[in-house]
Amino acid sequence: MEIKFGFASDNTAGVHPLIMDEIRSANNGHTIGYGYDRFTEEAMALFKEQLGPETETFFVFTGTAANVLSLSGVTRSWNSVITASTAHLEQDECGAPEKFTGCKVLTVDSADGKISPGSVEKHMHGFDFEHHSQPKVISITQSTEMGTVYTPEEIKEIADFAHRHGLLLHMDGARIANAAVSLDLPFKTFTTDAGVDILSFGGTKNGMMFGEAVCFLKSGLSGDFKYIRKQSMQLASKMRFISAQYIAYFRDDLWKKCASHSNTMASVLAEKISSVKGITITQPVQANGVFVIMPPQVAEKVCRKYFFYPWNEKTSEYRIMTGWDTSEEDIGGLVKILMQELKM
Amino acid sequence: MEIKFGFASDNTAGVHPLIMDEIRSANNGHTIGYGYDRFTEEAMALFKEQLGPETETFFVFTGTAANVLSLSGVTRSWNSVITASTAHLEQDECGAPEKFTGCKVLTVDSADGKISPGSVEKHMHGFDFEHHSQPKVISITQSTEMGTVYTPEEIKEIADFAHRHGLLLHMDGARIANAAVSLDLPFKTFTTDAGVDILSFGGTKNGMMFGEAVCFLKSGLSGDFKYIRKQSMQLASKMRFISAQYIAYFRDDLWKKCASHSNTMASVLAEKISSVKGITITQPVQANGVFVIMPPQVAEKVCRKYFFYPWNEKTSEYRIMTGWDTSEEDIGGLVKILMQELKM
Amino acid sequence: MEIKFGFASDNTAGVHPLIMDEIRSANNGHTIGYGYDRFTEEAMALFKEQLGPETETFFVFTGTAANVLSLSGVTRSWNSVITASTAHLEQDECGAPEKFTGCKVLTVDSADGKISPGSVEKHMHGFDFEHHSQPKVISITQSTEMGTVYTPEEIKEIADFAHRHGLLLHMDGARIANAAVSLDLPFKTFTTDAGVDILSFGGTKNGMMFGEAVCFLKSGLSGDFKYIRKQSMQLASKMRFISAQYIAYFRDDLWKKCASHSNTMASVLAEKISSVKGITITQPVQANGVFVIMPPQVAEKVCRKYFFYPWNEKTSEYRIMTGWDTSEEDIGGLVKILMQELKM
Amino acid sequence: MEIKFGFASDNTAGVHPLIMDEIRSANNGHTIGYGYDRFTEEAMALFKEQLGPETETFFVFTGTAANVLSLSGVTRSWNSVITASTAHLEQDECGAPEKFTGCKVLTVDSADGKISPGSVEKHMHGFDFEHHSQPKVISITQSTEMGTVYTPEEIKEIADFAHRHGLLLHMDGARIANAAVSLDLPFKTFTTDAGVDILSFGGTKNGMMFGEAVCFLKSGLSGDFKYIRKQSMQLASKMRFISAQYIAYFRDDLWKKCASHSNTMASVLAEKISSVKGITITQPVQANGVFVIMPPQVAEKVCRKYFFYPWNEKTSEYRIMTGWDTSEEDIGGLVKILMQELKM
Repeated sequence: MEIKFGFASDNTAGVHPLIMDEIRSANNGHTIGYGYDRFTEEAMALFKEQLGPETETFFVFTGTAANVLSLSGVTRSWNSVITASTAHLEQDECGAPEKFTGCKVLTVDSADGKISPGSVEKHMHGFDFEHHSQPKVISITQSTEMGTVYTPEEIKEIADFAHRHGLLLHMDGARIANAAVSLDLPFKTFTTDAGVDILSFGGTKNGMMFGEAVCFLKSGLSGDFKYIRKQSMQLASKMRFISAQYIAYFRDDLWKKCASHSNTMASVLAEKISSVKGITITQPVQANGVFVIMPPQVAEKVCRKYFFYPWNEKTSEYRIMTGWDTSEEDIGGLVKILMQELKM
Repeated sequence: MEIKFGFASDNTAGVHPLIMDEIRSANNGHTIGYGYDRFTEEAMALFKEQLGPETETFFVFTGTAANVLSLSGVTRSWNSVITASTAHLEQDECGAPEKFTGCKVLTVDSADGKISPGSVEKHMHGFDFEHHSQPKVISITQSTEMGTVYTPEEIKEIADFAHRHGLLLHMDGARIANAAVSLDLPFKTFTTDAGVDILSFGGTKNGMMFGEAVCFLKSGLSGDFKYIRKQSMQLASKMRFISAQYIAYFRDDLWKKCASHSNTMASVLAEKISSVKGITITQPVQANGVFVIMPPQVAEKVCRKYFFYPWNEKTSEYRIMTGWDTSEEDIGGLVKILMQELKM
Repeated sequence: MEIKFGFASDNTAGVHPLIMDEIRSANNGHTIGYGYDRFTEEAMALFKEQLGPETETFFVFTGTAANVLSLSGVTRSWNSVITASTAHLEQDECGAPEKFTGCKVLTVDSADGKISPGSVEKHMHGFDFEHHSQPKVISITQSTEMGTVYTPEEIKEIADFAHRHGLLLHMDGARIANAAVSLDLPFKTFTTDAGVDILSFGGTKNGMMFGEAVCFLKSGLSGDFKYIRKQSMQLASKMRFISAQYIAYFRDDLWKKCASHSNTMASVLAEKISSVKGITITQPVQANGVFVIMPPQVAEKVCRKYFFYPWNEKTSEYRIMTGWDTSEEDIGGLVKILMQELKM
Repeated sequence: MEIKFGFASDNTAGVHPLIMDEIRSANNGHTIGYGYDRFTEEAMALFKEQLGPETETFFVFTGTAANVLSLSGVTRSWNSVITASTAHLEQDECGAPEKFTGCKVLTVDSADGKISPGSVEKHMHGFDFEHHSQPKVISITQSTEMGTVYTPEEIKEIADFAHRHGLLLHMDGARIANAAVSLDLPFKTFTTDAGVDILSFGGTKNGMMFGEAVCFLKSGLSGDFKYIRKQSMQLASKMRFISAQYIAYFRDDLWKKCASHSNTMASVLAEKISSVKGITITQPVQANGVFVIMPPQVAEKVCRKYFFYPWNEKTSEYRIMTGWDTSEEDIGGLVKILMQELKM
């Protein structure tokens, strides 16, 4: 019996056929390299449409790179960056932010992956004091690593707080499409309009092959970024193959279809297991992740058929992700085997 | 009249159809991410076939990354790396080697892009002296940035020299296929067998979409590399789409067909212009680059139709590159317009 | 009226006369530079006496440097370092650990400046997982930034915990003399014998002019450290003037006299104000710091005569430090003005 | 027979008695730490007198630190720094400039330690091209590592060249006093007035104990430097003991007396050996270094009595340095033994 990996992460999925078609269609003759091609020009214009006319967009390869380079663009090594203890940039980037920016990363404990001015406040000290890393950026994740979603009001509150203290607000949008669908709002409403300054705009977790975007949402922030991107080994020579993906991604709101499906599958799963005895859903299911506590021996058995990752081994919490191509059949299969094992 | 970019670089070309097909064929269902999939397993095995059984291969995104991470894997920040003054890692990586390894890059002047023990010798001092960066790696490029090719004997001589001094030999193989075709030898003969320790094995300049390989050719060198790759923001989540390209690249020696064509086109071009008055070919044409001195006003006119880059503005030297898809028609067109302008 | 700075920090004091004499006495003719002199040889031998025969000692300039270089010596950039949220390396080094080691610094909340295996436990995960910074060092401060002191048993417990998980234990001993006096134990008992692996051994806060020591307490740890020190700009050319200070510092236990006086003055101060209404002493006074909550308007007035720093502006907590040369007269003067202001 | 180390380097000497006296005299009671004391205030004012009213001075510990932090203050990691191949920052700082600034160091071959616009010109390319490290600083050494001295005109020519290309001019003045004496000019004439932007002003090689100065000679350059200094582990807590040295150093031109003696001793030595058969003086003796070629077996014998370093083992070139306290007796002794050995 083959293990199915669809619930392990939203990056175990492949590439959406329409995105693949666009890649193929861009594979036509010669273009100048390194992003000076017409595909990239078009894609950058689409980002302006989505996020506002001041948006300056730079493509990079991975979500980690998008986060780290976003921070590099607006910090010096003696700055600090404040984020949730659950944030990707704290937990899952192997120290890339520290290594490449030199900055200190300060954390705020968070049960649901979200932070607020109240929780960030404790790091607002030591300004102008040379012994202390100078706070410069607050980074939030939308949707969060815990499958929750900030409202535009919550984001605006953090943005105002940041700006009042002379800080900038960064958003890790590796799963921004899932948040937009969850909120049923355009990207701009809860990013640029809510006061976000820099955005890591992801696509790989929602049907793209590779390639994320660093978006500077306000003018005056992206000055030297072309050198940062190149020196950080993130400048694609054949960039058209990233750009083409974003062209397809925005056409006819493909991103929305993918993320809607993904979110819906998570909801369906959550609904099916919410009243099952022996399972506790630990987070509101607002995007495409379902966090559950279940007996470890059950999880182990289920994972032989449908693999997913433990989130917290001490509490037997597991993370089940859905993606743009999760099938109802797989949801059914997962629920069925879960029920079987729980009944033992 | 549209400008044609085919001669600007070998990365203005698109993706070979067979590689595109393989990407598409890999886009089938779910796989575990980050390189633990069967495509990557197969591709790594192919590298062992090509380069020897001790080979440990790690995929990254760009040629710059392959070079920088190769060096990161075997150096500490107080080491130095010695290379030709023309090397990509000296001229074209925006300081990424220094930024990410902390090492000093020492150069050796080179007219044809090649270095030798004799020229490197001057940097062999200060060993064990804490004031001096400790020499640790010699890096050569094959084929070189000047379109020339090292013989296996030349490489072995440098490797022996490096090892005698306790150094390692790195090869930047962004255009290694062009060298293999030029030498008419298997990769292994002029890499592993010649004493190369670490290899940046490129494919993007020879028909791939993106994705290069860091190959540790001897056991014991790749210890912590998985952390280096992740922290350097070079770990692809959907790695199968790099791996699949290499599977196609090695199948039926596709790489050889591509590079043969590319080299042949360069030879044809060189031959056609070698006796033209007003043009001087400045380097032996051993791979897929043709370096020529011509009057700047001629170059300027030709570039309006067929773009290529100036190499040395002071001497009016230009670089004309060919690729896997350069057409005889384009060669003909370029030569024709060159002749026209020179006759004026 | 001149402000007195003696309570602001233990580094507002000057140099002990016996240390000054030794500096002067070392200023006699030529010696080879960079630590290959007989003063340094002697000082390094004294450290072996104090800390055990495997001790390898390297002098640097500052406490921050001692901490950062200690970590540099035993980490790679993908490691993490775990410390109290109050630690100097977290709060007061302007991000130097991150900038120079590339490591992630993980914190443990601590009310009294001390940490324990129980509190560190939460960071013991993600081993061997390339997305996660690999835990490598636990760093404790002795005496702590809060004026408290670890017992040898507490240290041993952390050391055992660290070693069980494959980590090393670092001690920031900027005020190690105050701890030794407080415990009435030789340095070795609560460092080497308790399982500490690397020690920042300070002297500047206890009567020296400048110069701290990085002590590797076990063999096999200091391999490349001479390059790290030089590249970190911490290699003194006229090193004899650091070494001579340590020679005087250890002679006839001068360090003990200085630290005893300092600790005693803190105790005396604490005793005098412990029952004063309007003042709360917030930490056990085990070394040379007294932490007190008092009304901010009182503090402000007192500070015009005897300056000290606010520790936590939100709770009106202040830190009052004593030093090797604090006079009973100043203690009396401080208490007197405090009482006056509180009675208002 | 004891080896004498006075000719090995100008840092084998001790501290001038007047400087030692000033240190002692500053050791009087409490001062606030980290440079906010009156000694530092006074010293900084003296630098304004010496170098001009816009001068902003920051003390650090070593010459390497002064150079590296000078560069840190005005570069970003994608910049390059251009210097002579003989420069301290290229040869003797163990890669600290690369590690801490991330910049590329580009070199210009130089026989006498000096560079000129003509030789730097070759690195003036790739501006605005993101693949290429952006040239930002030219660094010259005065007096040079080869014992030679730039005229103010030569410096002005380089400064003008630098500024014309948008670069800044840094001067490594580890031996600036020797240059001033050699030129018989005030410091300002060949630094600020000649167009130098940033200056590493040294004292340790001319009678001080430790402590060098980073001087920003024009306003607008030192913005964030306080954070750079602290994060680079170069902020002295008891800074008054650096500042006091500079107060003594400038009082009654003590620096001039020390450097005059040193330069004179080098001249005397050079004169005595200039016509000796078997010895070739390889550089003009303009400061306090004498570079000579002599038979290695002679050097070896002489070094058993008066130690000095080989400069180039391949050509049997040696460097003999004089200092503020070199005695005529030692000069005589050195010459005598040299003659003896040469006659063998």
